[in-house]
Amino acid sequence: MNALETLKEYIRFPSVSTDPAYAEGMQGARDYACSLLEQLGFTVELVPTALHPVLYAERIRQPDWPHVVLYGHYDVQPADPFERWSSAPFDPQVRDGRLYGRGAADNKGPTIVHMTALARVLEKLPDLPLNLSYVIEGEEEIGSPSMAKFFDTHGERLSRADFLLVSDTGSPNTEQIVVTTALRGLVDLEIKLTGAKGDLHSGIHGGAVYNPIQALTEICASLHDADGRVNVPGFYDDVLPIHDWEREELSRYPETEESYRQLLGVRGFFPAAGLRPLEAVRFGPTLEFNGIGGGYQGTGSKTVIPSEAFAKITCRLVASQQPAKIQQAVVAAIEARCPAALELNIRCGGSGTPYMVVPPNRPNTPADQPAALARAFQSADTAIARAFGQPPIYLREGGSIPVIADFKKRAGLDSLMVGLFTPLDNLHAPDESFDLSMMERAIAAFEAILQGIAGVD
Amino acid sequence: MNALETLKEYIRFPSVSTDPAYAEGMQGARDYACSLLEQLGFTVELVPTALHPVLYAERIRQPDWPHVVLYGHYDVQPADPFERWSSAPFDPQVRDGRLYGRGAADNKGPTIVHMTALARVLEKLPDLPLNLSYVIEGEEEIGSPSMAKFFDTHGERLSRADFLLVSDTGSPNTEQIVVTTALRGLVDLEIKLTGAKGDLHSGIHGGAVYNPIQALTEICASLHDADGRVNVPGFYDDVLPIHDWEREELSRYPETEESYRQLLGVRGFFPAAGLRPLEAVRFGPTLEFNGIGGGYQGTGSKTVIPSEAFAKITCRLVASQQPAKIQQAVVAAIEARCPAALELNIRCGGSGTPYMVVPPNRPNTPADQPAALARAFQSADTAIARAFGQPPIYLREGGSIPVIADFKKRAGLDSLMVGLFTPLDNLHAPDESFDLSMMERAIAAFEAILQGIAGVD
Repeated sequence: MNALETLKEYIRFPSVSTDPAYAEGMQGARDYACSLLEQLGFTVELVPTALHPVLYAERIRQPDWPHVVLYGHYDVQPADPFERWSSAPFDPQVRDGRLYGRGAADNKGPTIVHMTALARVLEKLPDLPLNLSYVIEGEEEIGSPSMAKFFDTHGERLSRADFLLVSDTGSPNTEQIVVTTALRGLVDLEIKLTGAKGDLHSGIHGGAVYNPIQALTEICASLHDADGRVNVPGFYDDVLPIHDWEREELSRYPETEESYRQLLGVRGFFPAAGLRPLEAVRFGPTLEFNGIGGGYQGTGSKTVIPSEAFAKITCRLVASQQPAKIQQAVVAAIEARCPAALELNIRCGGSGTPYMVVPPNRPNTPADQPAALARAFQSADTAIARAFGQPPIYLREGGSIPVIADFKKRAGLDSLMVGLFTPLDNLHAPDESFDLSMMERAIAAFEAILQGIAGVD
Repeated sequence: MNALETLKEYIRFPSVSTDPAYAEGMQGARDYACSLLEQLGFTVELVPTALHPVLYAERIRQPDWPHVVLYGHYDVQPADPFERWSSAPFDPQVRDGRLYGRGAADNKGPTIVHMTALARVLEKLPDLPLNLSYVIEGEEEIGSPSMAKFFDTHGERLSRADFLLVSDTGSPNTEQIVVTTALRGLVDLEIKLTGAKGDLHSGIHGGAVYNPIQALTEICASLHDADGRVNVPGFYDDVLPIHDWEREELSRYPETEESYRQLLGVRGFFPAAGLRPLEAVRFGPTLEFNGIGGGYQGTGSKTVIPSEAFAKITCRLVASQQPAKIQQAVVAAIEARCPAALELNIRCGGSGTPYMVVPPNRPNTPADQPAALARAFQSADTAIARAFGQPPIYLREGGSIPVIADFKKRAGLDSLMVGLFTPLDNLHAPDESFDLSMMERAIAAFEAILQGIAGVD
């Protein structure tokens, strides 16, 4: 199995899950992933959903062997704007040690890394004492809407496995791998305030009515304290403490506050009280305004009192905040702070549970951590140190992959997350690419990881 | 002079000042107004400007006669959306006692009322002892940008007159005329906050940076106290008191708080502390948010920390607040409240000075009020009582006509403002119309007013 050629072929199927025009590309990518798994000796099942089938595959030999589930996704982000790509997004090209193409890093490259490593191991050790399952979904880029139903039918079978192996997170560069120990959860809501039944002339009527923009800014401003903390009763109640070992791991992260400040192009930071900027994006929850609008937004001025104004809010949650509880608390705070003169409407959108896994031998490692998971972490540590020249950093991540928490909730599976893409890979943007030296080292690492899990180092 | 036919002819010239495509209509309306004034014995001058000439006319006989300047405008608002008119906007039609057409009420109808009344008086009294000037501009609907230069060249000549007579304000209905005693001034500004150099992923970077929407809402929320007053140091320093006679006049206004609430379609009012809603729109200054924007405004959610956010603000000022001073105070307050982590840009737009004139025999009437102005007010009171069955209400107005304050500032002229349009006239909207019974009664009233000013009742 030639990893580069296999990945190029995989990228050639334009599997954009959000756009019905790419149905053929979705089917092509799915069929290709199936054929690769069948070549590796898997029994493959296409689990139908309302939209794109989930690929579920098993290679189970002996019930008492360790059992790992590999997770990935065969769908990709849309490629537009096409004109900003240096080469066509679905015609993969190698330039300067990188393979360019939509999905190269997210998530087709990492998927091919896993499969190539597995193929090499099985070539050496056809009787590798390891049970394997694969879950490769086709809706990750649109929020995994079908996975809840998939867990209804397959959660029970998945729960017989020991843990999940995932490469859908990032590392700072190709020299330093991060093993992600947590993902933030998400709560999404939108508030809309309505005053008069139509826009009003600000001269004729200005002074009598509560301007919806004014009330909206007052409500929004109330949601943080002066020190940057979220001002919603109960918001921090369930937040788990940050451990010293986590701050020590973070100190190894190859970024300074100054380099981070320059990367973002900000004059200064504003983390919530008690946290450093690089800590706040990993260890702290947020309440963020993603959008606001109301009234006249064109050039110049228009002397109007708008009829309505809205704000879009998402919260990022950390373990062990509960999305439903936080959503309720934020809604209650907003309702309590809305003036009676205005009509308030709140749209509650989707949510995701935060996830955290603690590596073995830490002060806060659960006493009942399964031996297979602990062994996997230890194998990864050793294998990554050997392949990349330095051990991984164990770090919580600011982003969200809600399906990882769902694997825990619905099938009891914790995740070992090994980050294979870097900031240079342009995820979700034009000229997405995957570093070929990263690919080769990662394959070597995963060969050792799989053998380690199987106990045949 | 047949008022209705003259007005219909005037409306047929589509004099939309903001749209260069209507240059011919502008010239037609201007020429038509010139010819009407020449028929009335005026010497007419077309004063060139950067855009639409100002029509300046004089009929001056004896230097010691009273001298009144009549102000109006020959331009109109755009007529679109055309499809929402019941008949074509520039093809005037009479239906149910109203003349429909763009400009019928704003301001061609009132202009023809004045001219018709003058024609009838001069027919009876060809030697009427009254000097008359006319200023009819062509840029009122776009903010009178050329009037400053017009005052440079004609302010001196205008200053020899006694006062200004204007009908470009409103009355509540065709039975009850309002004489407007004040117009609010205006200050316009826009604030923009910039954080990171581009939009940021709210998962990867959320928690470290000051979200510009958050900072913007905090600044905006700080600009009012909990009781609705503007929270800017010095904002109320120069506000003149409200006199008992003004509240008594307002009590005659044919509107209740409940009818006003239903008209606006609001759940409740929010006037600044100490004012009733119907007072607040006339007697109080405001700081109003006309628009706000930032981040994602489409359907659903997008987990982004926007790079920037903006708000558009206008203040309505009352006598004797000074626009420059208020603008400076608001800018200083915003600057002082902007967090250092964000870049602040403020655009200062146009401004207008508030205007107030006190009718004679009030506790706050200036001791040096010119006799000619006092006589004009008294003539108007009597003439309106006779023509409409009840005396006018003397009331401050919430809207702004900055050029009225400029006549005072640049030529020393106070204004007698007799409101001839009503809320049913659909100003600036489709199906603008002018009530023909209002027109006839107003012509009768202005005949008496002009005779009264001349001292020949």
